[in-house]
Amino acid sequence: MQHIPACGSLRNLLLTISYDGKEFHGWQIQQNAMTVQEAFQTALSKIIGDDFDVKGCSRTDSGVHANMYCISLKTEHPIKPERLKAALNRWLPLSIAVLDCKEVAPDFHARYSCTSKEYIYKIWNSEVRNPFLDGYALHYRYKIDENLLDKAAQAYVGRHDFTSFCTLDNREKGDMTRNVKAFSVTREGDLVTMKVEADGFLYNMVRIMVGTLLRIQQGKIAPDEIPSIIEKKNRKYSGPTAQACGLYLNRVNYENDNSSQKGVNTDV
Amino acid sequence: MQHIPACGSLRNLLLTISYDGKEFHGWQIQQNAMTVQEAFQTALSKIIGDDFDVKGCSRTDSGVHANMYCISLKTEHPIKPERLKAALNRWLPLSIAVLDCKEVAPDFHARYSCTSKEYIYKIWNSEVRNPFLDGYALHYRYKIDENLLDKAAQAYVGRHDFTSFCTLDNREKGDMTRNVKAFSVTREGDLVTMKVEADGFLYNMVRIMVGTLLRIQQGKIAPDEIPSIIEKKNRKYSGPTAQACGLYLNRVNYENDNSSQKGVNTDV
Repeated sequence: MQHIPACGSLRNLLLTISYDGKEFHGWQIQQNAMTVQEAFQTALSKIIGDDFDVKGCSRTDSGVHANMYCISLKTEHPIKPERLKAALNRWLPLSIAVLDCKEVAPDFHARYSCTSKEYIYKIWNSEVRNPFLDGYALHYRYKIDENLLDKAAQAYVGRHDFTSFCTLDNREKGDMTRNVKAFSVTREGDLVTMKVEADGFLYNMVRIMVGTLLRIQQGKIAPDEIPSIIEKKNRKYSGPTAQACGLYLNRVNYENDNSSQKGVNTDV
Repeated sequence: MQHIPACGSLRNLLLTISYDGKEFHGWQIQQNAMTVQEAFQTALSKIIGDDFDVKGCSRTDSGVHANMYCISLKTEHPIKPERLKAALNRWLPLSIAVLDCKEVAPDFHARYSCTSKEYIYKIWNSEVRNPFLDGYALHYRYKIDENLLDKAAQAYVGRHDFTSFCTLDNREKGDMTRNVKAFSVTREGDLVTMKVEADGFLYNMVRIMVGTLLRIQQGKIAPDEIPSIIEKKNRKYSGPTAQACGLYLNRVNYENDNSSQKGVNTDV
């Protein structure tokens, strides 16, 4: 992806959105399936025509949600940011909302300028399912010891080669090292939330981290085994990829450009 | 509705359920529209056949949700309560969950034995909609003063004739007096929640109470005007009926039979 040089009236806008991913096949446009990017660009073209270039802050999988997701938009159209936000919120489906829209420096890029991202993973931890969380949290029937898992998960923190926590396909090439800044497992009533921040994530990395913690809960992986799983650099030693429905991109951080960014709070 | 006398092996069961009402046309069976009662009875008949009599604790409107809803079930089938709960949770759609099932006295009736009910009404109070609350909260763009409305709403509390807060149709006959035990308006971030407990509710009563408070917010009804609206006993002086989507039956109380009842918490 190349940065289009700023010249003449070319503008660069940063849009912060939130979306319910249940009915979408992820962010990135693909044939024969509705994606967030396609819905977004369809609405955008009704407002400013087809002269634009849109970059999302990350690929997200089918069924994954976003409390906060960032998009950079290059266009020569002179529409004011506040008007674009309002117009998009009229044209977009109800499952996508534009929270913020503002001008940014010409070299800003939603994906490459990002310094870190935070994901949360929601688990409804009760014998009986929650009818309001179908598609919005993993339903896990057996009692989770959140303190045990929180302690075990601290082994994820730090700069590691996360090959063991990556679905290998053609997407991931080169350096598999990522810097995990924090990982927490907390409980509020029957809802267990895992939260992880890192400078970047490999394909399926959060979902495999969660799946591995659930294997620890089940006694199939020892609580102190995560360091040796990391060291093996082999996907077969980690746990299964947890379902997409519990995963939310929660926060996207940019250097010097973070103060006004705020996602929606789905903890309500 | 008459109480079927307990005789021989006739049993009386109390089932506590929760449901996402977005796709249902309320509780009560009707032609040409899917209701919670129909979905429930369809699942039930797969487990115990057609020999049963089901009574719900209240009618609920199309699109209204229930964190807790109670059903009494008369049947001669010998199935154990725990097994019935598990089997129903396998057969029911994911939008309905059985939280509890237990034997109760022969004269218990989900509707007539009820001593009080509590409803909550959720309002997403932000300029931008929340993509996760489409169908689960009213979206209200202009800033709500929850303290102003909480204070005004205290005039609802007490034993009053609520004719002004009732949609008149053939449903409501006789005494229009209800005893409102408590009413509160609170905020958590952008979510405003109204909560009301009463010994009973007239048709659309909560939604008209909410609509009237929103008219007070808009300055179209004075904050101290509720007592005189009540006194007029005329629907034309109260506010509009607020949308169904924000309304949740939250708790159903029975005398001496309340300790184990607990709904799901949708505040997550």
